[in-house]
Amino acid sequence: MADRLDRQIRFIRELDRLKSVQRQTWLMDTSRKENSAEHSWHIAVMAMVLAEYAPGGDVDVGRVIQMLLVHDIVEIDAGDTFCYDNAAVSGQNGREQAAARRLFGLLPEDIGRKFKSLWEEFESRQTPEALLANALDRLQPILNNYYTDGKSWQDNGISRRQVLARNRVMAEGAPELWAYIDNLLDRAVAKGILRPSAS
Amino acid sequence: MADRLDRQIRFIRELDRLKSVQRQTWLMDTSRKENSAEHSWHIAVMAMVLAEYAPGGDVDVGRVIQMLLVHDIVEIDAGDTFCYDNAAVSGQNGREQAAARRLFGLLPEDIGRKFKSLWEEFESRQTPEALLANALDRLQPILNNYYTDGKSWQDNGISRRQVLARNRVMAEGAPELWAYIDNLLDRAVAKGILRPSAS
Repeated sequence: MADRLDRQIRFIRELDRLKSVQRQTWLMDTSRKENSAEHSWHIAVMAMVLAEYAPGGDVDVGRVIQMLLVHDIVEIDAGDTFCYDNAAVSGQNGREQAAARRLFGLLPEDIGRKFKSLWEEFESRQTPEALLANALDRLQPILNNYYTDGKSWQDNGISRRQVLARNRVMAEGAPELWAYIDNLLDRAVAKGILRPSAS
Repeated sequence: MADRLDRQIRFIRELDRLKSVQRQTWLMDTSRKENSAEHSWHIAVMAMVLAEYAPGGDVDVGRVIQMLLVHDIVEIDAGDTFCYDNAAVSGQNGREQAAARRLFGLLPEDIGRKFKSLWEEFESRQTPEALLANALDRLQPILNNYYTDGKSWQDNGISRRQVLARNRVMAEGAPELWAYIDNLLDRAVAKGILRPSAS
């Protein structure tokens, strides 16, 4: 029992490092970039607020939340991969598999299995819960971008076409939210904070 | 419907501000103090790891997680209250009640009611779920303090007696974790990073 609790505490100590993994998204007050721990909190609460937009409407919100809490833990070893950086994206899977083995391997086996299974469900995007979770993971940075006058889009020269291509998973996981975002991107282009698709 | 989604997005934008509410706890690498959003994420994942230590052992983990995700949202308006600052603690309740009215009032009424109810359950510490949630909320800063050589304890001249008095709620919510912490505090005193009770 002591050994089991020691392993649990060891993992909990390791979690602290996700607070130092920086994302490309800016906080809405533009004071600094966001980290992956606070991002995970934000989208987990979003699941509580927006669960009704899942297709069919009756997802297991508890599992969506747990997936979102766990989905970025591998970044403790693998780092955050900027979604528009194709070279970085290509090596992402191998890095994250190794990270999952090490990090979830710190836990007692039954709990480690559960964490790995939630992470794999999120990554596979097959279940309604995983589709909604992925949609929320995409929605939040788009909102933060829009409400910082497109700061990260502009810093990285991102176009409307790239945002649409990258985030089309939202169309399946939360069609009404996708329509909302499609409209938001039109407004972003009209405001001159996002490059139009053709340019 | 458009109005409902607008209210949901309005609330989600407001949530971003919790990432700028600073706590007294240091990150384990001592690079900076922690904020309330990433703290909330940390303890929500801890609930997934440590739920078995609830007395009786069969709490609704999903509700524990949701309580922990929501419990600090009022700090967006009310700020974080350092638990050893008795003057600040005395005005805390009124500030947080006003914050709950404004913040949860941004949401569509059905969702706002649910958030308020989770926050009140956490604050009232009556249910097994609320007791475990409160225990985890106390456990995490103690671990961060211990593994930063008592940085926040030392900065604020905190003694073992104060830590015990403040965190005794853990004895009810997670007795085995409380025993673990009691032992950790002994080691902290022995290492000279926490003032002994008598001094």
